Amino acid sequence: MKVVLKKYVTGKAEESDMEVVATEEEAAVLKKVPEGSKDAVVLKNLYLSCDPYMRSRMTKHDPPSYNPDFVPGEVITGFGVSKVVDSTHPNFKVGDLVWGTTGWEEYTLITNPLILFKINHPDMPLSYYTGILGMPGFTAYVGFHEIASPKKGEYVFISAAAGAVGQLVGQFAKILGCYVVGAAGSDEKVGLLKSKFGFDDAFNYKKEPDLSLALKRCFPEGIDIYFENVGGAMLEAVLDNMRLHGRISACGMISQYNLLEPEGIRNIVQIIPKRIRMEGFIVSDHFANYRKFEETAVQYIKEGKITYVEDIAEGLEKAPSALIGLFEGKNVGKQVVVVSHG
Amino acid sequence: MKVVLKKYVTGKAEESDMEVVATEEEAAVLKKVPEGSKDAVVLKNLYLSCDPYMRSRMTKHDPPSYNPDFVPGEVITGFGVSKVVDSTHPNFKVGDLVWGTTGWEEYTLITNPLILFKINHPDMPLSYYTGILGMPGFTAYVGFHEIASPKKGEYVFISAAAGAVGQLVGQFAKILGCYVVGAAGSDEKVGLLKSKFGFDDAFNYKKEPDLSLALKRCFPEGIDIYFENVGGAMLEAVLDNMRLHGRISACGMISQYNLLEPEGIRNIVQIIPKRIRMEGFIVSDHFANYRKFEETAVQYIKEGKITYVEDIAEGLEKAPSALIGLFEGKNVGKQVVVVSHG
Repeated sequence: MKVVLKKYVTGKAEESDMEVVATEEEAAVLKKVPEGSKDAVVLKNLYLSCDPYMRSRMTKHDPPSYNPDFVPGEVITGFGVSKVVDSTHPNFKVGDLVWGTTGWEEYTLITNPLILFKINHPDMPLSYYTGILGMPGFTAYVGFHEIASPKKGEYVFISAAAGAVGQLVGQFAKILGCYVVGAAGSDEKVGLLKSKFGFDDAFNYKKEPDLSLALKRCFPEGIDIYFENVGGAMLEAVLDNMRLHGRISACGMISQYNLLEPEGIRNIVQIIPKRIRMEGFIVSDHFANYRKFEETAVQYIKEGKITYVEDIAEGLEKAPSALIGLFEGKNVGKQVVVVSHG
Repeated sequence: MKVVLKKYVTGKAEESDMEVVATEEEAAVLKKVPEGSKDAVVLKNLYLSCDPYMRSRMTKHDPPSYNPDFVPGEVITGFGVSKVVDSTHPNFKVGDLVWGTTGWEEYTLITNPLILFKINHPDMPLSYYTGILGMPGFTAYVGFHEIASPKKGEYVFISAAAGAVGQLVGQFAKILGCYVVGAAGSDEKVGLLKSKFGFDDAFNYKKEPDLSLALKRCFPEGIDIYFENVGGAMLEAVLDNMRLHGRISACGMISQYNLLEPEGIRNIVQIIPKRIRMEGFIVSDHFANYRKFEETAVQYIKEGKITYVEDIAEGLEKAPSALIGLFEGKNVGKQVVVVSHG
């Protein structure tokens, strides 16, 4: 079984843009690195990660984006946790647990893997390597600590705060000693932020008639750091409420990905009088430092300093709806798809 | 004689929003620091600087902006070059030539001057201290060297490139060994950029039906550094043409200052895949380093490495039209108003 893209998407992505189809080859063939193929591994996929950036790959880009477009008719790829079932690669052996780029299918052949990390802490819940211990966790860490240059006591605002990345940014900021407020799209998520993740405050943006006023209420002194996950109207409201020398760490703009015509940001001029630094980043630029993060995050988890919420979809056939759900805010926490439990 | 703001402006600023009125006090009174006033100077104003940021001060701000609003009925203030004619301030004596904040009038009393620099090189054309050796020159230097983190060989684009700041950014970039292209609003200005300021290329943005295509023509490899003076449609076109890890040094957005509803920037999301850093700055934050710049710039001028073009309006009564002309692109080079030649 595998999930393929049916056709390139413009505008709103739908579940029907993907298709779950049978795999033609037999399992015995799929489980083996083909004869003569060097530096290759076959992965048995356990957990797949649904991430907002994948929406961009469903659209044809000319010139190409930093991430290659999916190809209609071919399997969708993304981050996942897998077990090595065959290998001609010197760094990976049969039985290794790994996370990195894989396919939305049961078995994936990877030749010359670029992003594939051995899992150093298999005692952790393995699905965490699609989240807190994988790409989203490292994204939160890099985007907060490296891009936003945070200092103890600063005012930090996070959009999509109950998501895979946002929940961690807030917890990292609390560990540093910041004042942390998050926005999310349901009362359930807002409750999680306050009760489970230790945010100082949170609001349901769908219930706020004026986002700028909501931010003024939560940040009477203004915002030092905005961790940007959504873009659009929220970014405008934030710019209105930023403090002097504020920083915007731009991780994603999920509110815009399904729009044919993105919303314009009308108050970008505020970056000048407020001396704001706004910076976009891509976590893969920083993977050389991943191992240090892995140790830090595992330590935080073991010490109970960080908690992580996942939204689990059981079965590969649920993957398309799980991915589309991200853009509707259906997931509560990190959206994971279970292909196999072992 | 003095220039006062008649009323707060919304939308387009007009010459008629200002008024040239007679000064009530007699010159003999004006030339003296009032009895008992400590740390004060009286300046005889020689040259006044017309700068785009002044438009913002013509509008009422609530909450206040970093720069105080002008007050209707009161004299307009800005940067200028002056001679000290009376002083109770320990750092300034009669006869000193200075530049800094002053009034749009013949004599200005300044108590506790915050921004007032003694002119260390009176052998230079004094009006240069409203431009290359003053606020705009230091703005160009800080915005390029400090904010944009430039490297030799990088591709640099400058909007409003023939203005007080832009012409210098281009020349600083050429000194460093960058490839430099400027946009300006007339063929005359474009000619200046190429023939006088040594830009590698330049275009008249008013004659380009598609700004993004114009940039693609000038930068087939893309833009590493954008020195932002205009905002709006130009910023969108630049975002489309930025290279990975590009930097935008945001100095001003003059195209937006007269608009009631600023234009929205619809492709700001590009800062993420392109890892762009966009940073606003205000030159006054950097004044502690001004003296070092003054020496560097004087050296450049003496060595013929930098040239500077001014647009001179003779007479204080010309100040309102000179200021308004900035927003219509009438000035060619730095707009200066001569109050007195000595």
